[in-house]
Amino acid sequence: MSVTAAKGFTAAGIAAGIKENGNPDLALVVNDGPRRAAAGVFTSNRVKAAPVLWSEQALKGGQVSAVVLNSGGANACTGPKGFQDTHATAEKAAEVLGRGAIEIAVCSTGLIGVLLPMDRLLPGVEAAAAALSEHGGEKAAIAIKTTDTVHKTSVVTRDGWTVGGMAKGAGMLAPGLATMLVVLTTDAVVGGDELDRALRAATKVTFDRVDSDGCMSTNDTVLLLASGSSGVTPDHAEFAEAVRTVCDDLGQQLIRDAEGASKDIKVEVINAATEDDAVEVGRSIARNNLLKCAIHGEDPNWGRVLSAIGTTRAAFEPDRLNVAINGVWVCKDGGVGEDREKVDMRYREVHIVADLAAGSETATIWTNDLTADYVHENSAYSS
Amino acid sequence: MSVTAAKGFTAAGIAAGIKENGNPDLALVVNDGPRRAAAGVFTSNRVKAAPVLWSEQALKGGQVSAVVLNSGGANACTGPKGFQDTHATAEKAAEVLGRGAIEIAVCSTGLIGVLLPMDRLLPGVEAAAAALSEHGGEKAAIAIKTTDTVHKTSVVTRDGWTVGGMAKGAGMLAPGLATMLVVLTTDAVVGGDELDRALRAATKVTFDRVDSDGCMSTNDTVLLLASGSSGVTPDHAEFAEAVRTVCDDLGQQLIRDAEGASKDIKVEVINAATEDDAVEVGRSIARNNLLKCAIHGEDPNWGRVLSAIGTTRAAFEPDRLNVAINGVWVCKDGGVGEDREKVDMRYREVHIVADLAAGSETATIWTNDLTADYVHENSAYSS
Repeated sequence: MSVTAAKGFTAAGIAAGIKENGNPDLALVVNDGPRRAAAGVFTSNRVKAAPVLWSEQALKGGQVSAVVLNSGGANACTGPKGFQDTHATAEKAAEVLGRGAIEIAVCSTGLIGVLLPMDRLLPGVEAAAAALSEHGGEKAAIAIKTTDTVHKTSVVTRDGWTVGGMAKGAGMLAPGLATMLVVLTTDAVVGGDELDRALRAATKVTFDRVDSDGCMSTNDTVLLLASGSSGVTPDHAEFAEAVRTVCDDLGQQLIRDAEGASKDIKVEVINAATEDDAVEVGRSIARNNLLKCAIHGEDPNWGRVLSAIGTTRAAFEPDRLNVAINGVWVCKDGGVGEDREKVDMRYREVHIVADLAAGSETATIWTNDLTADYVHENSAYSS
Repeated sequence: MSVTAAKGFTAAGIAAGIKENGNPDLALVVNDGPRRAAAGVFTSNRVKAAPVLWSEQALKGGQVSAVVLNSGGANACTGPKGFQDTHATAEKAAEVLGRGAIEIAVCSTGLIGVLLPMDRLLPGVEAAAAALSEHGGEKAAIAIKTTDTVHKTSVVTRDGWTVGGMAKGAGMLAPGLATMLVVLTTDAVVGGDELDRALRAATKVTFDRVDSDGCMSTNDTVLLLASGSSGVTPDHAEFAEAVRTVCDDLGQQLIRDAEGASKDIKVEVINAATEDDAVEVGRSIARNNLLKCAIHGEDPNWGRVLSAIGTTRAAFEPDRLNVAINGVWVCKDGGVGEDREKVDMRYREVHIVADLAAGSETATIWTNDLTADYVHENSAYSS
């Protein structure tokens, strides 16, 4: 159901010919109101793609009527011409939808440093507008795939209102924001400030804590649009929880579809002095290539976990650190703990607990193993 | 010639039975004086192996008579027993050499979290002492190998004095210090403070700028011992240059032997506002797994270079960045530059220049590509 699960939204996904292989590559999501409140979170990479620069401006008005998304080209590092192309895309959507261009957000994903084929993209916007449907959410989710093997959608329905969404992303998952384009919609009656608060709180503990390969994209975008068409005004905490649930679900789907991965690794840091310490340690473990290779080889190599913790500034004493892998405390007090032969590594999910013994804060970072398939996919795919 | 190229040093390398495969695994380097000045630089990982904690103390006295090095076990994360074992190793060497234990440095490399077989190691120290020779440098360099495919030595001879050394390290190359044990010797007449200054200045621009896989070891150690036996007191600048030359040469040998690598990548950052900016940007590029995969695939993917630069705090404007790969300016002013088809990627060495257009400082970081062989080696080798 994706972005059309919430009332007041239509969507479409078509093949505009941007991708050479003829697969779907253009999506359109339209908010039919009555309200058009919106919030957005963007990559913290300082090299930002043209559509990110454009959409950041669009969001400043607090109203978004529609989102145009294309795969097959990131429109990043494309200079003034690239920005003009994003602008022209918004203008075309505004024209066919009868809205102002500044209310149109644009998202792109694919190769960096290549201009988009505007002679195909602009007619594509017209075709997508003609194909808009209350049942178009699934097709829109399919049209934004790049190296994704599956499309990702999620829906949460509460008492009279719904939050739904779609995501793409499989490589370049990273901090700041995972690689991805995400569009969330809701029919709840929620103002722009409240949307913004709920979205930032949700991304901070979901997409921001998905770190597949430590590489931050130039194009990451998460948008949340509210139509108000349910007529229901939810309690803020309940609304924020629903947004977080959808973000968490989509984030998990991104991890499970990460390029070349054979293991999903949950890195849980406990008893940290601060939440920031917990996140720093979790990220350091999640980014350690040697550990990621060991997990790939089903080797519960806790020495590499300690070695990663040791590179952080977090509060801890080396001889008080404990590490569990899949429930077995293989490292106790900074040294050898239970027998590592007890660790069962056969399953796809691997759970690492790092106990800093320095406080009571906690954070969980999700990552993947490092595999020959990851190397192969990323040495062959020019993005 | 290694550590015995300088006069006043003897060395040995033997098989003590620490490695199960019977390969050489114990080295001894002895300074026969007349002077015994020494300096050391150690891992900045906060989880430090027992021999690092011990040798840091030994260096505080400013005198080192001998260094015992073993491969086949890192003696890291081994608790109080591990520290006792290092202490016993130093005591044994002190006894057989007729020196104080606090003048004996100890270095270990291999598996983390496993106690050393002291019943083999201590007799090994005796056997190594019996095998000491002015020609033992080569054997010592061989005995400290782990996954190294070749042993690494370097010698610089100046007017009447020499600096020589040996290094091991192939995985876990990283910031702060690359993975490695390095012992340098000189017969120049140089005091402890001057040795320390020369060594720190040299490691800062050599080993500290080798970053094969971003993973910092618990055991990194670089020692510089001076016998004074040449009777020559060199000018400080000349001495520092000789130390830097040997460190640079050994660092290059580490990169060329990095686990599974098929490309050596020189990342040169130019026109940075500060040297720190240049190092931060260089390291960010060097650690980008997606770029390292692209280079492996001989794909001059400059978008991934820009994406890595964008994650730093360095001073730059995105639309003024320039990137050259193997001499071709594929990115100009943050966008498409010369034809990427012109880039010849066939050779082992790849040269990336990132021009920040923000000042006049520069730094060079060396790294490797990311390959399926790296994944294989590190998912199979439990260290």
